[in-house]
Amino acid sequence: MNSAISSTLSATAAPTDTVRSGLEGVLAAETRLSRVDGQRGQLTIAGYAVQELAPHVSFEALVHLLRQDRLPEQAELEALRAAIASQRALDPITVELLRQAARCGAAPIDALRLGLSALCLEGEPSPERLFGALPSVVAAYARLQAGLEPVAPDASLGCAGSFLLQLRGQRTRPEDERALETYWNTVADHGLNASTFSARVIASTGSDLGSAIAGALGALKGPLHGGAPGPALAALLALRAQPGDLAENTRRWVTAELAAGRRILGFGHRVYKVRDPRADVLKSAAARLLAGTDLLASAESHEAAVLEALRRAKPDRAIATNVEFYTALLLHGLGFEPALFTCIFALGRVAGWLAHVTEQTARGRLIRPDALYVGAEGRSLLHGATAAH
Amino acid sequence: MNSAISSTLSATAAPTDTVRSGLEGVLAAETRLSRVDGQRGQLTIAGYAVQELAPHVSFEALVHLLRQDRLPEQAELEALRAAIASQRALDPITVELLRQAARCGAAPIDALRLGLSALCLEGEPSPERLFGALPSVVAAYARLQAGLEPVAPDASLGCAGSFLLQLRGQRTRPEDERALETYWNTVADHGLNASTFSARVIASTGSDLGSAIAGALGALKGPLHGGAPGPALAALLALRAQPGDLAENTRRWVTAELAAGRRILGFGHRVYKVRDPRADVLKSAAARLLAGTDLLASAESHEAAVLEALRRAKPDRAIATNVEFYTALLLHGLGFEPALFTCIFALGRVAGWLAHVTEQTARGRLIRPDALYVGAEGRSLLHGATAAH
Repeated sequence: MNSAISSTLSATAAPTDTVRSGLEGVLAAETRLSRVDGQRGQLTIAGYAVQELAPHVSFEALVHLLRQDRLPEQAELEALRAAIASQRALDPITVELLRQAARCGAAPIDALRLGLSALCLEGEPSPERLFGALPSVVAAYARLQAGLEPVAPDASLGCAGSFLLQLRGQRTRPEDERALETYWNTVADHGLNASTFSARVIASTGSDLGSAIAGALGALKGPLHGGAPGPALAALLALRAQPGDLAENTRRWVTAELAAGRRILGFGHRVYKVRDPRADVLKSAAARLLAGTDLLASAESHEAAVLEALRRAKPDRAIATNVEFYTALLLHGLGFEPALFTCIFALGRVAGWLAHVTEQTARGRLIRPDALYVGAEGRSLLHGATAAH
Repeated sequence: MNSAISSTLSATAAPTDTVRSGLEGVLAAETRLSRVDGQRGQLTIAGYAVQELAPHVSFEALVHLLRQDRLPEQAELEALRAAIASQRALDPITVELLRQAARCGAAPIDALRLGLSALCLEGEPSPERLFGALPSVVAAYARLQAGLEPVAPDASLGCAGSFLLQLRGQRTRPEDERALETYWNTVADHGLNASTFSARVIASTGSDLGSAIAGALGALKGPLHGGAPGPALAALLALRAQPGDLAENTRRWVTAELAAGRRILGFGHRVYKVRDPRADVLKSAAARLLAGTDLLASAESHEAAVLEALRRAKPDRAIATNVEFYTALLLHGLGFEPALFTCIFALGRVAGWLAHVTEQTARGRLIRPDALYVGAEGRSLLHGATAAH
């Protein structure tokens, strides 16, 4: 057993009638997909340290690793790329639906779930269909929202390259594809986070892949899970636009936010007690992407000032930059609108969701916890004065 | 603490590093909504025994009970009925979408999730909108599948009455409305079942109501959760159509199914060790509905023969008829196609889902269990022979 789990457990050891409303320290599954060691600040993806793996393999190779528990040979990788590439086209019904959603002003993550529901009308989607079509839904919706027509996928490109093409309408620089793949690889799996756990709970009933992924998308949408990169970026950009010294502005802002009882998004993590290893991977990726701009220097100055102000305000807590902060910087550097960040996250995390669903289905045990009843006792219709039946 | 929970816990007491892949005996929430006492065969809904409550109050009164922790006064009940009734109309986009889904031959539960996604395009749906519009989606889809046009709702009717009108195209007998309300009341809430738990996990991220309900629908669709009433009925009807004595046919069939390693759907429950109290409520309701037909007698004969054969095959287990069996009989008696059963279940259970989401949101704790990592250790790209990056 790894040290993160044992220390979490001993910290929450409690009588068995204790309600664990966050399920902290409860081992709800075995997994060979990833290990989150919050005490040491380590994330292992199928045996590889995330910082070694994420910047160096393609997204398709990572998908293969999660599915097969080993990186692919060249021929296997090409076969998987081709299988996914053949599944990217959206049928006219789905495109029409996204057009209507754009007219309604739907949030991209809602449009993605709608598109997923439409894909499921064809029958239960295969993993290849989901890897192929979900990026097409996101790209098509972003263009429709901007008043542009969807762009056809390119089967000669990988997931990241085709997605960027479908979004922008033109071929992109290799470094953009690399940055997006590094991001997707970094966030592809992360233990039993709430969206992955949602997918496993749904899959545990024997339900289909589309249902599990729809549930996971719903959880990812929540501000406590997948919703933080947008606000983390907004704060940096707003403070950077203010007159005066950025670090000084940042320190003042942190103090004011804490005084108002608000959290500083992009900093601190429920699991990681030291630095989130994903933040380093994404910082390096963002640095490569943003080389020659001063946004990176601003981000570093802002990060240092936030951490200094937070540590002064809460000296007993170990607070570190989390994955959201450099996610925001990286995705901003790639030209994505903040409104799209949660969808981009989903397109990487879906690799973990699908692999977890496969694990859950192989175990085949319905997930059904108990609740502690704290409600009324011994009521009867005969006693009550109410006639409201 | 109630006896069901304590005995479940003592039965599963284990070292803290044990993986509880089904989360049995883990108290994942406090709730005032319902208590499931599997040892005594009791289900309490906000303080009332289900068998006293379900047959005697309207579905709207039950919704009020779950929301406010008390049954409504007459004026409150009328206000809630009116608020829900005003939210039943579907916009043309949703109807068109359902029409396309019907052309694709989508399962009703998939069409319901699609319709829910479409409703969410209007903005986050209120509970009243969900109580009003979800039955309209189910009724419209069933008619479109049958080549008929949707029927407008009737704001003078309650949830059950308007749903039956929208489904059938004509006013129904009061006893049909009563039977459907009794069914919905009986299944409205049942502890932390997998769909309710899915809704709570999703809501715990701060996500919206539509996301939580979409996830719950996905879980309900699974054959281990909401999918059993159809097959339970199919077996009865098939055996009843065979020549010879029904009880004898049933016994032979059970023996053959068990020999083939299959479960007998409609019998046995993971939680209830004695008779499921909901089965009695639904049996009485079905008996009233089916008075004058011989289907009820067949069902009782079939039930007795199944139980006899199961008890002979597994003498050490307490096996009882579960809620699915009489659900199937009741819904069949109301004229619903088996393909629609899971949707009808959802229209009742949504009352519990919404109340649980409210409870979960009030507690505001992200549900994030741990996993035990059992995968590879110490892999490195430098060691591997693979060049597949």
